[in-house]
Amino acid sequence: MNKLPSFVQIKEVGPRDGLQNEKKDLPTEDKVTWIDMLSNSGIKEIEFSSFVNPKWIPALADAREVGKQMKRNPDVRYSALVPNQKGLEFALEAGIDGASVFMSASETHNRKNINKSINDTFPVLKAVIEEAKQAGKYVTGYVSTVFDCPYEGRIEPESVVEICERLLEYGADDISLGDTIGSSVPSQVENLLEKVMVQLPKEKIIMHFHDTRGMAIANIMTSMQYGITHFDSSIGGLGGCPYAPGAAGNVATNDVLYLLHGLGIETGINDKKIQEASLFIQSKLGKVLPSRSLLASG
Amino acid sequence: MNKLPSFVQIKEVGPRDGLQNEKKDLPTEDKVTWIDMLSNSGIKEIEFSSFVNPKWIPALADAREVGKQMKRNPDVRYSALVPNQKGLEFALEAGIDGASVFMSASETHNRKNINKSINDTFPVLKAVIEEAKQAGKYVTGYVSTVFDCPYEGRIEPESVVEICERLLEYGADDISLGDTIGSSVPSQVENLLEKVMVQLPKEKIIMHFHDTRGMAIANIMTSMQYGITHFDSSIGGLGGCPYAPGAAGNVATNDVLYLLHGLGIETGINDKKIQEASLFIQSKLGKVLPSRSLLASG
Repeated sequence: MNKLPSFVQIKEVGPRDGLQNEKKDLPTEDKVTWIDMLSNSGIKEIEFSSFVNPKWIPALADAREVGKQMKRNPDVRYSALVPNQKGLEFALEAGIDGASVFMSASETHNRKNINKSINDTFPVLKAVIEEAKQAGKYVTGYVSTVFDCPYEGRIEPESVVEICERLLEYGADDISLGDTIGSSVPSQVENLLEKVMVQLPKEKIIMHFHDTRGMAIANIMTSMQYGITHFDSSIGGLGGCPYAPGAAGNVATNDVLYLLHGLGIETGINDKKIQEASLFIQSKLGKVLPSRSLLASG
Repeated sequence: MNKLPSFVQIKEVGPRDGLQNEKKDLPTEDKVTWIDMLSNSGIKEIEFSSFVNPKWIPALADAREVGKQMKRNPDVRYSALVPNQKGLEFALEAGIDGASVFMSASETHNRKNINKSINDTFPVLKAVIEEAKQAGKYVTGYVSTVFDCPYEGRIEPESVVEICERLLEYGADDISLGDTIGSSVPSQVENLLEKVMVQLPKEKIIMHFHDTRGMAIANIMTSMQYGITHFDSSIGGLGGCPYAPGAAGNVATNDVLYLLHGLGIETGINDKKIQEASLFIQSKLGKVLPSRSLLASG
């Protein structure tokens, strides 16, 4: 087996990518309590909400309140999803440390999600990235459907590479490559990383897997064999998949930690605190979350 | 990535390892219909039941009836779990093609499961293996808790290797190495395989993973990177885990096929027929099975 990294950094996306797909509205107070638990777990990056128009993501309409009420741990970077300059304005008011901009590697998915062509999205993201950087914020560029698109099927790695290069050129600090529908297998990961890594240093690549078909942990193993050390995940596997109702969405932080700690890879994250935060949000949502290791621990 | 095999053989253990952990009693007729569906899916090995005393596994008390009623596909090897010579007698009457004997690599687990020490188990298995081979049957030796034991914790690979060698010496055709509690991560798989493969040719090794903590697909990837080409799995992830109620048990055949076919590895198995057999058993048991890709398929 190729040498694995000794340290891996996890970005917790449950409060944003997880909650945005949940049907049940969670009171702001519960979100804040939960994010405070995460802030004390050893996690170093938390995506706490989204400043997309609440019309599109009503579950996260309280992004500003959450940002203002949560207790900041100075060791944690708090980021939020930001679609445009208007969203950035609100996000800056809420005191974000990082702004996450986003677009899709699939033309059709981008149009359905952002209501713009890929070419028309670039200038919007450029403006947001430049303004966020001027404000001294960290910027992550999310690229979604990097393997397969629910409308177009297989996506060519070349289109992904081109988008990554442009976002970095605009000033993004790193890029999160999203398997939005959780369809990829390790050979696809290998194929994409081989192409992306010609242009991007591995430190600037975050892999964002969904476990919709149970492949996420194997895909993370493969990514680590390529030297990738940054992954997005969601507590308990919170989230689900908008394209397959009832199926799993984001890979569970719990399962990723089971893998990493089992392999002897350090994360700085306390398993027990993650367990507590998982049980908290599970009880607030009143449903069993899909994380396998969470289920096994209970 | 290391070169992967071009063909992988799946043994379907749902009718035995899956059903034995289900609470609901399934009528013999439904089992037979279901096994007939599996027989026509391209699967080449089906473990159809168990000839352990029905006092211990009441859900499989109809092993003889199932064996007599199912339609044999001449391309399929039909095997059953056999604990001792008495069990073998019944199994031979039921017309098995293969006998699966079993023991644990953990002294405590073996005592709890078989009510004998490891040393006292060897002569029992030796007698069964010899008689089954004389009857012209294929023999698989299951070794359980090869990574971790729910009572003893970590198991030394050396104890596993010793058991494998003895079972092969008695005449077993191959050995199935069981991650009974679904606790292993790829580094443990690597560590065990490195030691086992010094003594056993890789063709004689079957890996039997449980997905209790979501690691099974990654463990199968790692095993294939070591040249392993035989895996046990259960339709839909049927089974559950007796040590963690509500958690997943056997890795789902559906998820394994999603991985293998996605990687371009041939199995001879028809995905659509597996899907149909999964939906059939799911409806008969009246519950949602844990396979991620089954859930995602709608």
